[in-house]
Amino acid sequence: MEPRSRSFIYLSSFLFFVAIATWFILPTNYHYDAYYATESKPSFSAPKQNVWAELTETEAQDIYDFVYAQRPELNLVRRPKSALENSIYILETLRPNKSDVVPYLFEDGDAPQRWAKAVLALNVDDTPSLVYHAVGPLPISKESQILPLTYPFNSGRNDVKSEIKDYQAIIEFGDALGQSISDITQELLGAATDPDSKDGLLCLPRPSRVATGGLVLWFQFFRPGLGSGGRTLLPQGVYVKVNATSLDQDDWTAGPYFYNGVIYDDVEDFRAAIKHANFKKTPPNLDGSWTDTEDFDAKTEGRELPPPISVQPYGPRYKLDKNERFVSWFGFEFYITTAQATGLTLYDIRFKGERVIYELGLQEAMAHYAGDDPMAGGQEFLDTFFGMGKNMYELLPGYDCPAYADYMDTHYHMAHETHELPNSICVFEYTADHLLSRHTAEFSVTASRNTYLIVRSTSTVGNYDYAIDYIFYMDGAVEVKVRASGYIFAAFYRSNKTEGEDEYGHRIGEAVSSSVHDHVINFKADLDVAGPTNDMVRLALEPLTKSYNWDQPEVKERNTMHLVEYGVNQETGLDWPKNSGEFFIVYNSEERNAWSQRRGYRITSGTGMGSTPHLTIENSTTLGDSARWAEHDIWVLRQKDTEPRSADPLNYLAPIDPIINFNDMADHESLEHGAPDTTYDGDLVVYFNLGSHHIPHSGDIPNTLMHTSGSSVMFIPHNFHDRDPSRESVQGVRLQLDGKKFGGGFRGQEEDDDARVDLRTRLNRRGEKDPKVNYFGGTYEEGVKVPLEALEPDLEKGYRTKRHEVTDLNFNGSAAGVWMVG
Amino acid sequence: MEPRSRSFIYLSSFLFFVAIATWFILPTNYHYDAYYATESKPSFSAPKQNVWAELTETEAQDIYDFVYAQRPELNLVRRPKSALENSIYILETLRPNKSDVVPYLFEDGDAPQRWAKAVLALNVDDTPSLVYHAVGPLPISKESQILPLTYPFNSGRNDVKSEIKDYQAIIEFGDALGQSISDITQELLGAATDPDSKDGLLCLPRPSRVATGGLVLWFQFFRPGLGSGGRTLLPQGVYVKVNATSLDQDDWTAGPYFYNGVIYDDVEDFRAAIKHANFKKTPPNLDGSWTDTEDFDAKTEGRELPPPISVQPYGPRYKLDKNERFVSWFGFEFYITTAQATGLTLYDIRFKGERVIYELGLQEAMAHYAGDDPMAGGQEFLDTFFGMGKNMYELLPGYDCPAYADYMDTHYHMAHETHELPNSICVFEYTADHLLSRHTAEFSVTASRNTYLIVRSTSTVGNYDYAIDYIFYMDGAVEVKVRASGYIFAAFYRSNKTEGEDEYGHRIGEAVSSSVHDHVINFKADLDVAGPTNDMVRLALEPLTKSYNWDQPEVKERNTMHLVEYGVNQETGLDWPKNSGEFFIVYNSEERNAWSQRRGYRITSGTGMGSTPHLTIENSTTLGDSARWAEHDIWVLRQKDTEPRSADPLNYLAPIDPIINFNDMADHESLEHGAPDTTYDGDLVVYFNLGSHHIPHSGDIPNTLMHTSGSSVMFIPHNFHDRDPSRESVQGVRLQLDGKKFGGGFRGQEEDDDARVDLRTRLNRRGEKDPKVNYFGGTYEEGVKVPLEALEPDLEKGYRTKRHEVTDLNFNGSAAGVWMVG
Repeated sequence: MEPRSRSFIYLSSFLFFVAIATWFILPTNYHYDAYYATESKPSFSAPKQNVWAELTETEAQDIYDFVYAQRPELNLVRRPKSALENSIYILETLRPNKSDVVPYLFEDGDAPQRWAKAVLALNVDDTPSLVYHAVGPLPISKESQILPLTYPFNSGRNDVKSEIKDYQAIIEFGDALGQSISDITQELLGAATDPDSKDGLLCLPRPSRVATGGLVLWFQFFRPGLGSGGRTLLPQGVYVKVNATSLDQDDWTAGPYFYNGVIYDDVEDFRAAIKHANFKKTPPNLDGSWTDTEDFDAKTEGRELPPPISVQPYGPRYKLDKNERFVSWFGFEFYITTAQATGLTLYDIRFKGERVIYELGLQEAMAHYAGDDPMAGGQEFLDTFFGMGKNMYELLPGYDCPAYADYMDTHYHMAHETHELPNSICVFEYTADHLLSRHTAEFSVTASRNTYLIVRSTSTVGNYDYAIDYIFYMDGAVEVKVRASGYIFAAFYRSNKTEGEDEYGHRIGEAVSSSVHDHVINFKADLDVAGPTNDMVRLALEPLTKSYNWDQPEVKERNTMHLVEYGVNQETGLDWPKNSGEFFIVYNSEERNAWSQRRGYRITSGTGMGSTPHLTIENSTTLGDSARWAEHDIWVLRQKDTEPRSADPLNYLAPIDPIINFNDMADHESLEHGAPDTTYDGDLVVYFNLGSHHIPHSGDIPNTLMHTSGSSVMFIPHNFHDRDPSRESVQGVRLQLDGKKFGGGFRGQEEDDDARVDLRTRLNRRGEKDPKVNYFGGTYEEGVKVPLEALEPDLEKGYRTKRHEVTDLNFNGSAAGVWMVG
Repeated sequence: MEPRSRSFIYLSSFLFFVAIATWFILPTNYHYDAYYATESKPSFSAPKQNVWAELTETEAQDIYDFVYAQRPELNLVRRPKSALENSIYILETLRPNKSDVVPYLFEDGDAPQRWAKAVLALNVDDTPSLVYHAVGPLPISKESQILPLTYPFNSGRNDVKSEIKDYQAIIEFGDALGQSISDITQELLGAATDPDSKDGLLCLPRPSRVATGGLVLWFQFFRPGLGSGGRTLLPQGVYVKVNATSLDQDDWTAGPYFYNGVIYDDVEDFRAAIKHANFKKTPPNLDGSWTDTEDFDAKTEGRELPPPISVQPYGPRYKLDKNERFVSWFGFEFYITTAQATGLTLYDIRFKGERVIYELGLQEAMAHYAGDDPMAGGQEFLDTFFGMGKNMYELLPGYDCPAYADYMDTHYHMAHETHELPNSICVFEYTADHLLSRHTAEFSVTASRNTYLIVRSTSTVGNYDYAIDYIFYMDGAVEVKVRASGYIFAAFYRSNKTEGEDEYGHRIGEAVSSSVHDHVINFKADLDVAGPTNDMVRLALEPLTKSYNWDQPEVKERNTMHLVEYGVNQETGLDWPKNSGEFFIVYNSEERNAWSQRRGYRITSGTGMGSTPHLTIENSTTLGDSARWAEHDIWVLRQKDTEPRSADPLNYLAPIDPIINFNDMADHESLEHGAPDTTYDGDLVVYFNLGSHHIPHSGDIPNTLMHTSGSSVMFIPHNFHDRDPSRESVQGVRLQLDGKKFGGGFRGQEEDDDARVDLRTRLNRRGEKDPKVNYFGGTYEEGVKVPLEALEPDLEKGYRTKRHEVTDLNFNGSAAGVWMVG
């Protein structure tokens, strides 16, 4: 085995150096990729250019200048003070149509034209609108144009009206409103509204759009939760409704008020009630160490020792072109790109040279609450609106990802500025705590390590942290996994509730209700299994009662089971089957393996908690038509250039008439292909949901834990190859026992087949022939020195972020309104 | 933080030594637990004795002698040649009744009496029977007795009759039968039956019991699969039925024959048909490198480097009393014991001093096949019969478990011999590739590592390997996980099938059908959540349409959701709910947390693939009443001393009238407690199933892969504590950014509360006060040297097993008949 020999020779010379080594001398091939160091790895280049790459800062600036010059009549300002001023709100790559990319990737065609997508914030008829435009081709030239961008939106529109004219003004309205009832809040909550004091209250809104136009806002008081950032654990249980249907903020009116389950028509009623002797108060939530995310002082036995840790002394086995964001690892190849709404998307995922998935990425992340109070009762977040990409903050090397991971920065362009999110994507290999395969036979035992590749980012949208993994396994399996942590968005728990009365959560703090909610996180997987022409089937395992000729006469009829295949012949949503009794498989009916089986990939709930759920609520009032993809677990649709996404971030602003209505995408078109009367070519696309029904309990305080919040869908080869392809990549060991070294599992007979002898004959570490221990793949052959940086990266020096900025000036405040840029 | 300071001081002095260190000098607290070395760890003792411990060899020998002396009339022999000779087949601990153990564990009562369970193999009326006896108390004294053991068996019997008088004779019958039609096998398969040749065929039976008595055997030919042990991939498609209903083997008759879907009444018909010109042959399966479990020669790029690996340079943070098999880790405490049928069982699992689970262990492991050929069509294994414990072979250090794991041996007693399974249990900590929790705030970011504890064993029952994990997490969660690898038991694929005609599997080799089957693996969890008096509820999240006062007038009715709790008021089987829409929670209604919530544990499908399934087949003909627990996902029953197990290994011999019929355990008794008319005290027990619907595909060749075969159930605290208890155990880091060091997530105001300042003030590595980086838990403070043994343990020297023996003399041949002891 040539590679192993080379390693062996290397290590012999390494041993020589060791004798004179100081602590800090490492083997020359020792790789420690300090996470912030400039690297000098062997150059590796992607085979093609990353045609989905985010705009560079230069491109962005050129586009800004071009748009300002071309559209002077819009009075676009570079730094808008509010949504009342026109600006270029978002600028990013308009990803090329698949039909334009495929010739480039697979047919030696030219690279598709490069275009940008600009979201202009325009004030039209005194109503703020966000309007999509396409700008290109790039680089800016005489041919470049600014065109309305309509084709990706099945509403037929390219604009979304926002009822929120000025978010900052709403916040200020809340401040003033809160201060105007300081006597009440002092009485009930022991504090007055003061956004500038750590002891002051905050008065924060849940806006909702009214069918007849305008907004209704329910404000609730919160304590700020300074020490930890746990404001969403500190609702105060005093709520005020503001009628904000008028375009003129001066016309807004406050009231009714809601407290302890009772509605008070206006502030005077409320004030009068409080003064009444029988008025029932409910204790508020005060901050304290219970919201601290860490306990520095607990001396739990064992805690004084650091835990086991993963090291990678000989460096990575993947190749990474950071420029084109292209990764190659044991037959897998793919490109990475980012967008501020949706975070990472992977393109052109191939395995062993074969097409598997053209596009894989997040579409939307919903958190939908329920409750009998005015805040939780109508609360729902579509987090791409707040930005799953632009909230992808810097990762903690050694913690979020191993010290030895490769880290990449993300950039995005908003309101004339290019923002950098340093070290916000990591790529690394990890060896699982368990094997990929093993077998004990009578005279041998064999084991293969399960080492996999992860591409990870973490989006913190206000209170909540989503770690999103794309995981690749040596057999060709691909996994998408989301784990959640951070603070839950709690509701106020009213003390006048009797036990069991809170049908919307558990009491988990003084006046904290755990506030049940559904997380439904939508992903797109444009599968091209061995090519674009695919079919989806449900392969069901079903009970069967049958009479077999060989069973006679003893067994007249046998209760048994069998496989039944059902085609998925039209666009539809599917739910994971009862008793996990169906395999959802995407086959390439035209491509067969050596055994004449259709080459396929199975789609299944993976290693998250149980099976992924969909939204509990049927036809949610809050959501309207903005997120119909949440209603089933997995969807199969035709791939269309005009339907590139299941959702749009601006759907959040317009739930009743969203710019993309998924219902109109999943409209039962036939998936039959090849017939003369269809233009459909068999290229299907899958949307699937991760997430959880989250019924937080006391253990979610202070933060939700990731090991039990995981949610996963996997794409597993199903007859894709002729045999398990991991065998040619994996590292492991085979032991032959007791002199029967060529006997496998059976009776230990001598094996005399020459080919086999050759296959199994190796030198061991000591240079002995036909050893008992036979390794495959590279092995450790000497001890290694692991420097501190590989165990505990120097975060004092290495962590680049000075402050986790929220940059959305139009809609400042994250999903949970926790961070605010003043 | 005292522990961390100590570590810091230690490491300073360590640094001094480093300067003069040679390669092999390690920090004195450097722990590398060579897997086979005798250890000199600080002594640690379990608080109580392990009353469930397996018999020692001395105890066993004393019992053998006692039984021989007391029962001379039985003519017990020490080394039976066949099941026709009487012997003490199995000898093991009769685990004490819970009612006898509880006073010892929790009330300072005496330890329960120690008894043994002896299974006598007796030939009664020329029929082999296996008869349970209790022998005790131990040690053997004048008080000791041999009593029929009946109370754990709800059949009311203590014996099981076996229709298999002499397994070896059946095998020899098959050899002779095969040789008698060598002309046919030469013609169809190109080989003759010869169990002593690597090129010869084997003729192996699937026995089934006939309702009217006796056996019917369907034999099939196999090629032996010498090199790899992959015989179960090599069925040959020629089948012979043997009528073995007579007690006298001389009366057995062969025929009909089955080939290529056609039944031939007798051998002459078959022979005549083959000579016919139109006879359709189907190619057999020949062995080749395709059954090899490893590919030594593939030079896949990257494979020359070893993968990342987990190290534990400062030693474990758990404590292990190997004598009593007691483990203590971050608040978890439990005892381990073993049994030859069922492998590991954990007892008295506590967390932070509180009772959680009294007993947790495997009950039975079923593999149930289906097919339209006489072998797969009636094939079903209950693997405790073959021994999930006695097939727990030696683990490969560095592969099955990390090099730094602690390993323990297992012993069992069978047919007068004590057998050792060295290094067959491992215990280790592992740090996940992902965090336990994290949160990014505006001026801080915090992260906690997810380090967990695993207790692992691996049972290879013939062709198939089951890795069984008990996993403990810092928040109190417990997981039971099974992963499968090894060779599938394939069926013969007939070439005359048209595509899609094989409704029992895929073609995955020349004539190999993947042979669909269900794995259903039953476990018992005797939950005592904060004590024995528990209730189970289904907490459902359900859609709701409701009118809320605060929603008026804008929203007349709202489509939302809410929680509805359903009691589980009688013994019953439950299935995981549709859309994962219910939480199954076991509460202690008498024990409340600080928030007046019932303290509970939730039971859920965990990190295996999707939700665990139950048996597809309804009322399986093959199983009869032997495994009714397979029909639902989870069961809730009363805990009874007389119902200690859901299954018995001997059920496999008597499916129609099993010695334990689970149907009669799950018989809908009320689970209401506290009422005057019930003797039930609220102590419930849960049985649950792991497993999978296994539709193997080409990627299962050569071996099933573990990363996609995992199956898990988790027990997750649900309001068990007042707050997440992992906070006091976990290791992690908090960063404060940009001088706002006491500002948490909000606006970065200075924090002036003294207590908080104290909490967050630390020295960093450089001795600076109020550093940006604040660690909690022990950290790595210097680089470490990792010796080769911690990366690649010396398996040449360390692996103790000389041959993986199958020791069941009465029923030699494992589940798949792969290994045979001649």
